Amino acid sequence: MHFASDNSGPVHPEVLAALAEANQGYAMAYGADALMNQVRDRIRAIFEAPGAAVYLVATGTAANALALATLSNPWETVFCSAMSHIHEDECNAPEFYSGAKLTLVPGGDKMSADALRRSIQGEETRGVHGPQRGPVSITQVTERGTVYSLAELQALCDVAKEFGLPVHLDGARFTNALVALDCTPAEMTWKAGVDVVSFGGTKNGLMGVEAVIFFDESKAWEFELRRKRGAHLFSKHRYLSAQMAVYLTDDLWLRSARRANANCARLVQGLRAAGAEFLHAPDANIVFASFPRSLHKRLHDAGAVYHLWGAELEGDDADEMLPCRLVCDWSIEAEQIDQFLALF
Amino acid sequence: MHFASDNSGPVHPEVLAALAEANQGYAMAYGADALMNQVRDRIRAIFEAPGAAVYLVATGTAANALALATLSNPWETVFCSAMSHIHEDECNAPEFYSGAKLTLVPGGDKMSADALRRSIQGEETRGVHGPQRGPVSITQVTERGTVYSLAELQALCDVAKEFGLPVHLDGARFTNALVALDCTPAEMTWKAGVDVVSFGGTKNGLMGVEAVIFFDESKAWEFELRRKRGAHLFSKHRYLSAQMAVYLTDDLWLRSARRANANCARLVQGLRAAGAEFLHAPDANIVFASFPRSLHKRLHDAGAVYHLWGAELEGDDADEMLPCRLVCDWSIEAEQIDQFLALF
Amino acid sequence: MHFASDNSGPVHPEVLAALAEANQGYAMAYGADALMNQVRDRIRAIFEAPGAAVYLVATGTAANALALATLSNPWETVFCSAMSHIHEDECNAPEFYSGAKLTLVPGGDKMSADALRRSIQGEETRGVHGPQRGPVSITQVTERGTVYSLAELQALCDVAKEFGLPVHLDGARFTNALVALDCTPAEMTWKAGVDVVSFGGTKNGLMGVEAVIFFDESKAWEFELRRKRGAHLFSKHRYLSAQMAVYLTDDLWLRSARRANANCARLVQGLRAAGAEFLHAPDANIVFASFPRSLHKRLHDAGAVYHLWGAELEGDDADEMLPCRLVCDWSIEAEQIDQFLALF
Amino acid sequence: MHFASDNSGPVHPEVLAALAEANQGYAMAYGADALMNQVRDRIRAIFEAPGAAVYLVATGTAANALALATLSNPWETVFCSAMSHIHEDECNAPEFYSGAKLTLVPGGDKMSADALRRSIQGEETRGVHGPQRGPVSITQVTERGTVYSLAELQALCDVAKEFGLPVHLDGARFTNALVALDCTPAEMTWKAGVDVVSFGGTKNGLMGVEAVIFFDESKAWEFELRRKRGAHLFSKHRYLSAQMAVYLTDDLWLRSARRANANCARLVQGLRAAGAEFLHAPDANIVFASFPRSLHKRLHDAGAVYHLWGAELEGDDADEMLPCRLVCDWSIEAEQIDQFLALF
Repeated sequence: MHFASDNSGPVHPEVLAALAEANQGYAMAYGADALMNQVRDRIRAIFEAPGAAVYLVATGTAANALALATLSNPWETVFCSAMSHIHEDECNAPEFYSGAKLTLVPGGDKMSADALRRSIQGEETRGVHGPQRGPVSITQVTERGTVYSLAELQALCDVAKEFGLPVHLDGARFTNALVALDCTPAEMTWKAGVDVVSFGGTKNGLMGVEAVIFFDESKAWEFELRRKRGAHLFSKHRYLSAQMAVYLTDDLWLRSARRANANCARLVQGLRAAGAEFLHAPDANIVFASFPRSLHKRLHDAGAVYHLWGAELEGDDADEMLPCRLVCDWSIEAEQIDQFLALF
Repeated sequence: MHFASDNSGPVHPEVLAALAEANQGYAMAYGADALMNQVRDRIRAIFEAPGAAVYLVATGTAANALALATLSNPWETVFCSAMSHIHEDECNAPEFYSGAKLTLVPGGDKMSADALRRSIQGEETRGVHGPQRGPVSITQVTERGTVYSLAELQALCDVAKEFGLPVHLDGARFTNALVALDCTPAEMTWKAGVDVVSFGGTKNGLMGVEAVIFFDESKAWEFELRRKRGAHLFSKHRYLSAQMAVYLTDDLWLRSARRANANCARLVQGLRAAGAEFLHAPDANIVFASFPRSLHKRLHDAGAVYHLWGAELEGDDADEMLPCRLVCDWSIEAEQIDQFLALF
Repeated sequence: MHFASDNSGPVHPEVLAALAEANQGYAMAYGADALMNQVRDRIRAIFEAPGAAVYLVATGTAANALALATLSNPWETVFCSAMSHIHEDECNAPEFYSGAKLTLVPGGDKMSADALRRSIQGEETRGVHGPQRGPVSITQVTERGTVYSLAELQALCDVAKEFGLPVHLDGARFTNALVALDCTPAEMTWKAGVDVVSFGGTKNGLMGVEAVIFFDESKAWEFELRRKRGAHLFSKHRYLSAQMAVYLTDDLWLRSARRANANCARLVQGLRAAGAEFLHAPDANIVFASFPRSLHKRLHDAGAVYHLWGAELEGDDADEMLPCRLVCDWSIEAEQIDQFLALF
Repeated sequence: MHFASDNSGPVHPEVLAALAEANQGYAMAYGADALMNQVRDRIRAIFEAPGAAVYLVATGTAANALALATLSNPWETVFCSAMSHIHEDECNAPEFYSGAKLTLVPGGDKMSADALRRSIQGEETRGVHGPQRGPVSITQVTERGTVYSLAELQALCDVAKEFGLPVHLDGARFTNALVALDCTPAEMTWKAGVDVVSFGGTKNGLMGVEAVIFFDESKAWEFELRRKRGAHLFSKHRYLSAQMAVYLTDDLWLRSARRANANCARLVQGLRAAGAEFLHAPDANIVFASFPRSLHKRLHDAGAVYHLWGAELEGDDADEMLPCRLVCDWSIEAEQIDQFLALF
């Protein structure tokens, strides 16, 4: 009963097999391996973007920080949600790489187009004195487990385009969102107006690989130099390629996300039946809910692992409602869900 | 007959097995995995440094840049060889992470203690105007394949200590040097005066792991924050730990380096017998030599892979001596050496 | 009738005279001039801080950005008001110099101690993942013209000290606040808990000089190096010293601020009598008020100069209330105030 | 007898008068003052560059660092002399502002075109691994007091253009060089191939103003943002404009430099007659020479002020030749020269 994070789960066995298969003889280093050509071709095909530039890095923070640095100038500000990973969980990495600052669009975890527009307009009047308007960064799935609809994405991108600003999509859980929306990668990205995607693999069964996809190739060489300068270019790159290649083979990416989302839906259904309060719409593979402290203790004693969210398990008030986050990893089993729900 | 780089070779099979073994169930993310405790304990034991702080990153450039950033201030200069990896091959990553600049100590690929002292003294007279003296960074094995003796290391560290400066050892090929010197890790590091080590694994059979070892723990938390801010903290960290853990099990690290060095010695012996000119002392697993163009062509046509060094294979003068670099990877076989030598 | 900014006014004639007097023969460059010794002594005396380190720079943004960089680490966040100059009007200079980010404390232009505490507490739970807590920066006079009472300052500093955080005071209008509070410099700074002050002179009659005062000398050398590296060390430094020296002679600083504040009080009284709405408490030399568009047009046509605040003079609705900012410079005359008020 | 630096001398009286004249009433802040329009027009006329973008900053280091940051990317390297001010005397400011590193072209204080070409070629072979080629920065007058001929400048710029690299001219002593060459500003800059000039005023009689001149306006807005972000935009900008405006009025800039150079020539002639050894060609207003220790002591005892260059006045060997630097400021009198020479 492990719901702590989709970072805690194991790697999919097919990934390990792919690593073993890639482990034959010599290969060109630093991204010149033959497998990378396969990866590039597959991503271009899947995204219906024959001219896309594709790069692999090993952490989601690297993907985001390097992508934003490439899209922005150091005197600009990036528009994002106050609950975005780039603001809350990257220890100033986006600022370090880009030099830009972050403007937190007021509202909840999802930005609304109106709030985004007001934030952008708010940076308008100070000439050289204030930060200049920079890229918009959208997190899909959000850090609270909700998913922007295609219409919502389109509306955000439209606002960005209104001001001539590029759009970055932080897709650490890209495939969980895609499965939730039942749309194509192109629809969730460039067709809506996204310019650059952090296409996550690590949280969905890989060991540590994220692709950064530029639909416009003109920034490709700059990205390569930023990646190297950031110390994120792997010498034995074939092992990143191998992971991403198998991820995109036989729908492994989709199978894994579908399974995580389906198990999360099973969890949500059970929690709803048990009368739980949800703090955010559980659209993909993450649930935020509140339970009484006494229930948390029972779950904890039974061995369930998950994060309380700004709350402490210990406390006198047994009835106090404590928020928590439950994440369904690709590897979780329906039996674990049921076992967990049986404790309610 | 592949001598291009020790980055091009495969991962040792024991490493793949260790990854598979680590791939069971859930594990704490971000370095809190149980395997990391093993790694820390083993490194402390091997280095006879019970208080050492130990961190894992995935690239050698990250290890170097983060280590130097932790040792320096942005108004300082790092003393290093003009042929060091941090100067030539890291696309400004050390400068990006540290803000410091690099002072190139005149001389060859190895710094001499006298040249180092003169360089440090040369930064003395400008008060606030010039960069301030910062850490000394020593590359062991050097980028030209030579190895500092313990006495040489000691002399360099003594100069640094004379001026109160910390010492970093870039040990991307740490174990190849250790085997060449037949000494202990403690002798090659803190006993000589080294403060922080980039302890490489990738070039010696791992997939992508380097340890950064601080013998003084006082900078440990700063390093952790710099690693995260640099986007080099892995979520599924157990797979870094697993590689380093197996590396230090049953002497895999030593076995791999001994094999690489032994095969290189076989290569050197054969080349010497064939009358080759060596450009640098081939102390570990790298050879720099010059051959006539006609010989290079014959080797190339026979399928040998290696880098010419600032020279072009094509050219009219068949007798022109062209320098090249030959690297013996852990995986190379004596048969390949002999096959290569047979072409001379 | 010029109320645009205390940046638009002339330099006090005593300052020009001091520059002429300093212009004799040769002087040591880069801060080693004899006048700088006088400045240091006077500031130490005035602030009752015999051990203070004192530096001069030429812009308020330089004073703030260098002070904050010296107080913080690049993985930290600075707590400040959303209406602070460092956030709104310095085009990312604090982030550039420090590497840190800014956390905007919710509320109005003045931070409350409770809001500050909640903001600091909010950065507590993410370990290495989020930014770490850094300095608190307080703007006195605020950008909206209000002044923190000594009790309010003390309460903010107490919160900072509770968490072990240093406190910076952005005193671009330090003397206007001092005069408004009728207290001593020590009371408004280190006695309340402030560690470093940007002590402004430019807005109060100097040509371009701000002092940065560290009550704890331990960071002094770091500041000197940061100033030089930031290109803010003046070669002909005596002309900065001369300005600050005369500023602190015969109470020029106090005379100028008293005059500006008194004229502002006259303006406020007149506006109040005319029924104007004030948007913020006009505690020092700045007024934020709203007038109907028709009145703005009349003022404008009569030659009054000031900034509308996020509003446009042109528009159809003559009765619409448009906010504006009116600043009383040290040089403004009571007659100009009366002339302006006569237009109401 | 003050030869310490052209930073130690007074400001020209015409400059003080211009400041007093500018000190009338209100003026737009932040570079929007009317005087700045005059400055821009005059510089465009003097440089025969009607489309040039012109900015003022207060220190030479700011001019250089901001200019280089605008010309380069953070993954590049700047080619310069090992004796350049940007390398030796700016405490990492160019690296701080640009993120780039510096490549020191081998040779003396003047770069030769051949050495420059070899340095640029040397950065060619490493692809993404090494720093990329960035701007060439030429110091005119050099830090050792020599002046590049127009042919030499042209040859350096031609090499830069061969590789598509922009050229920066560090003209902290621009006018001293211009007078020495007896050429036009256009000939010494854009006609030779220079793209951006740091046009110094401070060392030639101003209080603290340098212009940065871009012959191609396309980077103008970026420079403005970098200047603000670097905290180098002055609020009371009219006092920078006033200095530069008077500098370019009635040939003040040329008169001052001619006087300094002429007095230096008188000094050189006297030293030569006295048999002094020159370490560098004394082309402008700086002399590097060696005298016996006993002579230095006599000069020192007679009150002469200048810098020994990496040598100590105290010592046993009275005959030891000690190098020194003698700078003729705009304000030095022929009588002082003669008085100094009389001591030989």
